[in-house]
Amino acid sequence: MSERAFPLAEITDIELNASLETTLYEQLYHAIKQRICQGRFKAGMRLPASRKLAEQLSVSRNTITLALEQLQAEGYLISRVGSGFYITTDLPETFFKVKQPKVAAIKPLLGKSYLAASVNKFMQPSTNRDLSNYPFQPGMPDLKHFPKKIWSRIAQRYHHLHDTHLLAFDDPRGYLPLREVLSEYLTSSRSVRCQPQQIILTAGAQQALNLVSHVLINPNDIVAIENPGYIQARRIFELHAAKLRGIDIQKDSLCIKQLQRLKLPPKLIYTTPTHQYPLGMIMPLAKRIQLIEYCKQQHCWLLEDDYDSEYYYQAKPIPCLQGLADSNNILYMGSFSKVLFPALRLGYLVVPESFVDTFTQVKACLYGHDVLINQAIVAEFMSAGHFGRHLKKMRLLYADKLNYVKLLHQRYLEKYSELLEYDAGMHLVIKFKHAIDDNVIVSQLREKKFAPTALSNYFIGKDKQSGLVLGFANSDEKMIEIGIKLIRKLIMSQI
Amino acid sequence: MSERAFPLAEITDIELNASLETTLYEQLYHAIKQRICQGRFKAGMRLPASRKLAEQLSVSRNTITLALEQLQAEGYLISRVGSGFYITTDLPETFFKVKQPKVAAIKPLLGKSYLAASVNKFMQPSTNRDLSNYPFQPGMPDLKHFPKKIWSRIAQRYHHLHDTHLLAFDDPRGYLPLREVLSEYLTSSRSVRCQPQQIILTAGAQQALNLVSHVLINPNDIVAIENPGYIQARRIFELHAAKLRGIDIQKDSLCIKQLQRLKLPPKLIYTTPTHQYPLGMIMPLAKRIQLIEYCKQQHCWLLEDDYDSEYYYQAKPIPCLQGLADSNNILYMGSFSKVLFPALRLGYLVVPESFVDTFTQVKACLYGHDVLINQAIVAEFMSAGHFGRHLKKMRLLYADKLNYVKLLHQRYLEKYSELLEYDAGMHLVIKFKHAIDDNVIVSQLREKKFAPTALSNYFIGKDKQSGLVLGFANSDEKMIEIGIKLIRKLIMSQI
Repeated sequence: MSERAFPLAEITDIELNASLETTLYEQLYHAIKQRICQGRFKAGMRLPASRKLAEQLSVSRNTITLALEQLQAEGYLISRVGSGFYITTDLPETFFKVKQPKVAAIKPLLGKSYLAASVNKFMQPSTNRDLSNYPFQPGMPDLKHFPKKIWSRIAQRYHHLHDTHLLAFDDPRGYLPLREVLSEYLTSSRSVRCQPQQIILTAGAQQALNLVSHVLINPNDIVAIENPGYIQARRIFELHAAKLRGIDIQKDSLCIKQLQRLKLPPKLIYTTPTHQYPLGMIMPLAKRIQLIEYCKQQHCWLLEDDYDSEYYYQAKPIPCLQGLADSNNILYMGSFSKVLFPALRLGYLVVPESFVDTFTQVKACLYGHDVLINQAIVAEFMSAGHFGRHLKKMRLLYADKLNYVKLLHQRYLEKYSELLEYDAGMHLVIKFKHAIDDNVIVSQLREKKFAPTALSNYFIGKDKQSGLVLGFANSDEKMIEIGIKLIRKLIMSQI
Repeated sequence: MSERAFPLAEITDIELNASLETTLYEQLYHAIKQRICQGRFKAGMRLPASRKLAEQLSVSRNTITLALEQLQAEGYLISRVGSGFYITTDLPETFFKVKQPKVAAIKPLLGKSYLAASVNKFMQPSTNRDLSNYPFQPGMPDLKHFPKKIWSRIAQRYHHLHDTHLLAFDDPRGYLPLREVLSEYLTSSRSVRCQPQQIILTAGAQQALNLVSHVLINPNDIVAIENPGYIQARRIFELHAAKLRGIDIQKDSLCIKQLQRLKLPPKLIYTTPTHQYPLGMIMPLAKRIQLIEYCKQQHCWLLEDDYDSEYYYQAKPIPCLQGLADSNNILYMGSFSKVLFPALRLGYLVVPESFVDTFTQVKACLYGHDVLINQAIVAEFMSAGHFGRHLKKMRLLYADKLNYVKLLHQRYLEKYSELLEYDAGMHLVIKFKHAIDDNVIVSQLREKKFAPTALSNYFIGKDKQSGLVLGFANSDEKMIEIGIKLIRKLIMSQI
């Protein structure tokens, strides 16, 4: 190592300015580091003694020491007892060529081929990325009627954080009081058979789908999904490298004969029996029993997604599949996104007793714990009765909107499309009577800030139907009328 | 279909009671349903006319109609125009044998073999499930000193929900104002090179690890991890069916020669260069440059986990690897769990520009959107300067605690264990000088409500070291003293 100290003159151009916001020691640290990186201070050179540096730069020795120690900690300098600081000799030549590159200088070393295969397959130019709250967006509730005052009063209390427990970890399944009140609600309203210990709270329905996939699906396992069906579920299963089999929706439910005709039975069947997504039909009891029997015989898992069963406008929905069956192969999931608000990110999964431990461990590993404060707010919102009242209010509101869409469809669109009349949920489906590309209509509507989705995208395979999935919950009458008239105009320009 | 109506006498034992909480129509619905399930009302039988039923049961015809329509919707009854309601003939015989089973009657149709292979491999009796906030728990901050008043004041404002935007969806990357202020912070404090559009907010560090795994890892891809290293990361990679290669921590960092000796280069290297987890050393600059060069030559991904760089008590930590490199193969992650509170569930991933779109799409698919209100609160907490002040306060507090643990270790434990002195972070590591099973000590400590973790668990392979990882942040002086003395007692009873 060269013992040559470089002359003090080398540092005379370092200007330290006490009136700047960065401290003097930081300024000095940056100045020396810069000179090392530029190659002006060579490897092995000894720095002048800190006393001399302090004199030269008119700062305290403490400032000098802080800067040099930082540089030492970072590996730019090394120190020798009694002999002071040296520029390190450890840095390779290549380092000095890098010269603090800017963002623009980043080189594209890796390309798409360095991603997981399931991701490469999955990547498509995505059409529906912009998820602002536009009229006709499926699944988006009417946030203007959310009981903000009640919510904020409860939220305020929990955000005072008297209970530091809510800041730390809890049971990985989520906040117990919420699981308790939810278990009561699911038992009485949906005939789900569950105890609080079987409920695993998730950050939205997607986390539930993802957790189920992690726990159940090996690459190339067969997963049967409804065709048409929920796109996000399909994409999540694809990301887990499942082999998908679309089972057609015929008349009133998924076609059980098609299931029986599969060469190999699926590992998992994903279904929305309460309100088929997106078409809307209710799976009748007899079909439910057949499906449960099929799953028992074939030893396959059944995932029941009860995504919007809270919204019915005539008869109450049929009790869920999970409550009908007597075997431990049924998973039940739901979400608060539609009944409260989407950005709450709160869903749930009801797991058979014998698998609770497994699901809990995998959840804890993959996602850690939950946003406890929000779960505490929801627990109180439910147990104080606000949840029930909110649902009742929204049911009336949405029934009116639904009827208004039906009325306007009759008035303006009946010539061009067929409306599927299932009076439940937060969306309606219309099927075009002419051969029109629904994705074209959707992108034209999006330009005008309407966000229905294209029916054809919900299908897999070649036999797609063209139409629109119209969320009606987040639209007011005025926007519904403007939107329906616009749809007519766009259809007419296509035929 | 039998046209035989059953005699009215069949329903005389139905008792409806207007003073009960359930409505009359629900009582009637349950009564008829029960009789169908019990086989008392046979398939094909016609129900008496609703007028007659109303007379017989002394309720309004409206009540009768509601109950019968619900039963029809559920598939128990079918209706024929002008002829009334019939018991359905669609239900299979097996249905009547099920008889509304209770939870206890669930049959264990599926066993562990019906889970994904990676999960079966991963399942172990877990020792550290109970994650209450006990002294010595690594990674747990001192929640008593969290600025609750400031937080709740900000939270209150956002929970008033004036902005319904915070209830709906946003950019899948998370709330932009938080990404903006975070980008400034990471640039200035950690020399991360990032723009707000490169930041993807995640629900905690685990979601970041999981997202990276989904985007990058195919089953059987090689992932190099530090040995010892972060257990949760290892488990997440295992759940993604990666082949793990442990790279030993030698002297001051992971051994790059071991990396070079791998038969196949890894797809991904996971590292904690700022403060090796759990041992605590800082990877020196020269090693960092070697590691970056290795990854460039071998075209592998580097995931830099900067999990607690905010806590340093002497020199500031070395700027991150991501800021040193000029290639697009480095991912940088961090978390707010330690600087704010764990149940916030907020972490972040900084992604090279060329891959932002892919990561964003996969995040949107797997997890949907974020808890926007909480992100808005954190954004304001940071931009108003509370974050910086909180960090400064906690640094002083934790430095005192760290010194106190060191003092007491010297006083009580030096004979039995070696303390690794790296003055950063929120935990210290002690290695036992005798052959003691650290898991035994840990479970004995847990009984007394102390929650350090066993050092040996952080190792993979046979060559494990025995000792304790002592979180000191969440313990006060009194508990630290009780705990250290208890550890001495337990060690002495083992040797």
